[in-house]
Amino acid sequence: MTYTVQIKVMPLKELLDPQGKAVMGGLANLGLNGVDDVRVGKHITLQVNADSPENAKAIADEASKKLLSNAVMEYFEIVVD
Amino acid sequence: MTYTVQIKVMPLKELLDPQGKAVMGGLANLGLNGVDDVRVGKHITLQVNADSPENAKAIADEASKKLLSNAVMEYFEIVVD
Repeated sequence: MTYTVQIKVMPLKELLDPQGKAVMGGLANLGLNGVDDVRVGKHITLQVNADSPENAKAIADEASKKLLSNAVMEYFEIVVD
Repeated sequence: MTYTVQIKVMPLKELLDPQGKAVMGGLANLGLNGVDDVRVGKHITLQVNADSPENAKAIADEASKKLLSNAVMEYFEIVVD
């Protein structure tokens, strides 16, 4: 069966996020107030062929660790739809 | 009150996603099988100061339309935590 797996990869909370800071500046320039903080990361959607949601999540976990995220700078979260 | 708003910005389904195709190639090279399709987009987390979740979502919606996404190539989804 094919499962849709959503992976969110974000910069670690302890680190600065220059892209997020740039977006904050952009929002202020557009006159959009009320945004206190912005963090920008990646969102990856996988179509995984597996026999159970647990196995689909295991494949996504391995993909995230080996290729999609850098543990020094990023953390990831996986949701199987 | 401060609301955490999650915004997912992904390439439109009708369009090719070269970054996703590159990730698929990378996964195959790593020997990770079972992944049929990959789409890569952005994930943005906003801390929004608003008086209701509806207003926080409205601010995120305006930010997404004006700055964070390009309607020609991308769609976005907003979730207020």
